[in-house]
Amino acid sequence: MQTKILQLIHEKKWQEVQEEIKDLNAVNIAESFEDLDNNDVLILFRILPKDLAADVFSHLSREDQMVIVQSFANKEIEHILEELRFDDMIDFLEEVPANLVKRILKNTTEEKRELINQFLKYPENSAGSLMTIEYVEFKKNLTVRAALNNIKKTGMNKETVYTCYVTNPKRKLEGIVPLRKLVTSELDTTIEEIMYTDVIHVHTHDDQEEVAHVFKKYDFIALPVVDKENRLVGIITIDDIIDVIEQESTEDFQIMAGMQPSEDEYLKTSVFTLSRHRITWLLILMISATFTGRIIQHYEDVLQSVVILTSFIPMLMDTGGNAGSQSSTLVIRGMALGEIDSNDYWKVFSKELQVSILVGLMLAGINFLRIFYLQKVGLNISLVVSGALFLTVVLAKIVGGILPLGAKKLKLDPAIMASPLITTIVDASSLMVYFLLATKFLGI
Amino acid sequence: MQTKILQLIHEKKWQEVQEEIKDLNAVNIAESFEDLDNNDVLILFRILPKDLAADVFSHLSREDQMVIVQSFANKEIEHILEELRFDDMIDFLEEVPANLVKRILKNTTEEKRELINQFLKYPENSAGSLMTIEYVEFKKNLTVRAALNNIKKTGMNKETVYTCYVTNPKRKLEGIVPLRKLVTSELDTTIEEIMYTDVIHVHTHDDQEEVAHVFKKYDFIALPVVDKENRLVGIITIDDIIDVIEQESTEDFQIMAGMQPSEDEYLKTSVFTLSRHRITWLLILMISATFTGRIIQHYEDVLQSVVILTSFIPMLMDTGGNAGSQSSTLVIRGMALGEIDSNDYWKVFSKELQVSILVGLMLAGINFLRIFYLQKVGLNISLVVSGALFLTVVLAKIVGGILPLGAKKLKLDPAIMASPLITTIVDASSLMVYFLLATKFLGI
Repeated sequence: MQTKILQLIHEKKWQEVQEEIKDLNAVNIAESFEDLDNNDVLILFRILPKDLAADVFSHLSREDQMVIVQSFANKEIEHILEELRFDDMIDFLEEVPANLVKRILKNTTEEKRELINQFLKYPENSAGSLMTIEYVEFKKNLTVRAALNNIKKTGMNKETVYTCYVTNPKRKLEGIVPLRKLVTSELDTTIEEIMYTDVIHVHTHDDQEEVAHVFKKYDFIALPVVDKENRLVGIITIDDIIDVIEQESTEDFQIMAGMQPSEDEYLKTSVFTLSRHRITWLLILMISATFTGRIIQHYEDVLQSVVILTSFIPMLMDTGGNAGSQSSTLVIRGMALGEIDSNDYWKVFSKELQVSILVGLMLAGINFLRIFYLQKVGLNISLVVSGALFLTVVLAKIVGGILPLGAKKLKLDPAIMASPLITTIVDASSLMVYFLLATKFLGI
Repeated sequence: MQTKILQLIHEKKWQEVQEEIKDLNAVNIAESFEDLDNNDVLILFRILPKDLAADVFSHLSREDQMVIVQSFANKEIEHILEELRFDDMIDFLEEVPANLVKRILKNTTEEKRELINQFLKYPENSAGSLMTIEYVEFKKNLTVRAALNNIKKTGMNKETVYTCYVTNPKRKLEGIVPLRKLVTSELDTTIEEIMYTDVIHVHTHDDQEEVAHVFKKYDFIALPVVDKENRLVGIITIDDIIDVIEQESTEDFQIMAGMQPSEDEYLKTSVFTLSRHRITWLLILMISATFTGRIIQHYEDVLQSVVILTSFIPMLMDTGGNAGSQSSTLVIRGMALGEIDSNDYWKVFSKELQVSILVGLMLAGINFLRIFYLQKVGLNISLVVSGALFLTVVLAKIVGGILPLGAKKLKLDPAIMASPLITTIVDASSLMVYFLLATKFLGI
């Protein structure tokens, strides 16, 4: 199906394309726009069935959206924006150049312009920036019959009709009624009799991560958003929350690998931007690593007198780094999922202490057997290396487990306490331990 | 509210608890069970309003569920399970001991027992293991009026009524009707006239990650599942997909930090299990790191004659590791989100080559200034160290970007090509480069 359309587009058989496309899902149609040149994008968009155009537009890449808006006349743009869901329109306006926003706003009604401006002011990543205004709102004295009639008339223009909101004359939220409840209730019942009053809601300025937590906890498909005066101003739907959840994970992955987080797709990001996101942490960590170098310089004479000691440095540093980042990853992820609280430091400490002793003993034991029996290194040196390895693992796991909790306490993002930083910290301390043991037990 | 109830439970004022609890959301009631002793768990569960009991049960921790099932009589268990959503029951049965499953199955009807057994057989993490059978099913010649009447009668017992499924007499899926469409259509219309026939579905044996991709792509709230003969056998709802998305990210975080993935909460996992998940990779990586040690041993004389070279080893190793894991993280995450395809190696290679040259030049430049001017290291040595640093960064970024794609080609999980493994590989190669440059340009 899809390939057939691409073929027809390729051959510029636009009439046949139009015929093929009309039964397709908007998401699939939007896919056919990929890799088209600007000219074909415009033609294909113009031949879309009117009622699908806005829906397809909202699924296009930002680039294709821009191509369309920039070459369409004001009237046409107005029509597309009219049909777009309010939150999709805000998303779009947030990312296009200012002069285009101005041009678009000029073509809307005064009332709508005000509303758009208000929405554009919500902080990025806040509940306000995620919400939409296309929800179903009732007063509580309405009957189920009247409510269903209302939905029958306006339902297709709402973001969702599956949860309806009950407000008082001051627009304060009094309850919610799922559509399921409406369609299973008797027609003469009033909304008040069937509405749920224990309403879970979020505030416009709540962070999107908190909003996602509420969705996950209660298994909702939509959530009302209220302003400072507790008036209902919008709703957030689950499809946008899925994007938030993915985005928050991606951000954590990036921060944990020592990068500035970015929402842009890798393949679509310029070399310069990618480099900019990476250089800061690389620089910080490179300079921090010189401390480790200083430690080595300080103990140069130890390494000179027992040359083989140098060859165990990579193994000690790597194992320490790996052991530490295992712990920090589990704790950072546990906090992101709300399973570990920043006050759990005793629990984390005790767990990591026990795990690290167990794991450290095994690693040190195997290491001892390997270097003493296979590599034929002297007993004392084998003991010093294995002892340093054991202490490194214990230290790394405790540092890795505790630092993310500490970061949270200091209102920093725990994700910065991941592999790169932990590795740098553990490197320096493991070498200190190594040289202290060496000087003490090898009589240097 | 919540604290008041906890206070009342603490004082064992059960009647007042019962009074307080009856307007609460099942999720919030389930929260009050946390940290209660087994005895109080049982009392609190017994005083729940009958219609809430099953819903609360499905939100309890596995431990509390076990406490309840083990001390309740067969009749009572039967009642709870009767009221549980089918997918929640399957989830529960999958995790309790076999003897308990037997006891529970004994108390159900033959028909239900067969169905349960069939569901328990679906592979873990397959669409089949996620789906539920409580969906709304119509024939296409039904009128909207009849359909709405049907929903009115049975709607409250379904997992969702917001998407209804149209099947033929052989149970093959012919279309879907969103409830929104039903309530906005005229009562005399037939289902056939309003149903969507371009139905996106998944198969029972599809992996849950693919299912999640379909949900994300189309913004669905439910998706039909068909068997090999294309018969409708269940549906998956979005709330379960959110859990899948979180779980898949968690798995990636764990694998990328060199651990065996596990779905268990950190604080609830035993020290022994945590250790077992961590030791394998630590061992593998520790032993691999000895190759790096061998390289150092091999060039011992170089280090002996220019002692200061040793002190730059940590900086080289760490910067290489960090540079490589930045690239591998972006590529692994990009693949997980479906933004990068395993055939994109030329694009990734060219991007990483350019980024690494840019970043490498900056790092090497700053490093040169620092060690030549501040640390007063000789010109030749400064050049060798900075040159090795530049080459290490280029090598690390290319290896980090390409190996995850290679892993995917070999049908391995790309996430294993993350920080720990990349670091080990880059360590060895960066030291090789370092020593080669040193022998060549320092005349050793």
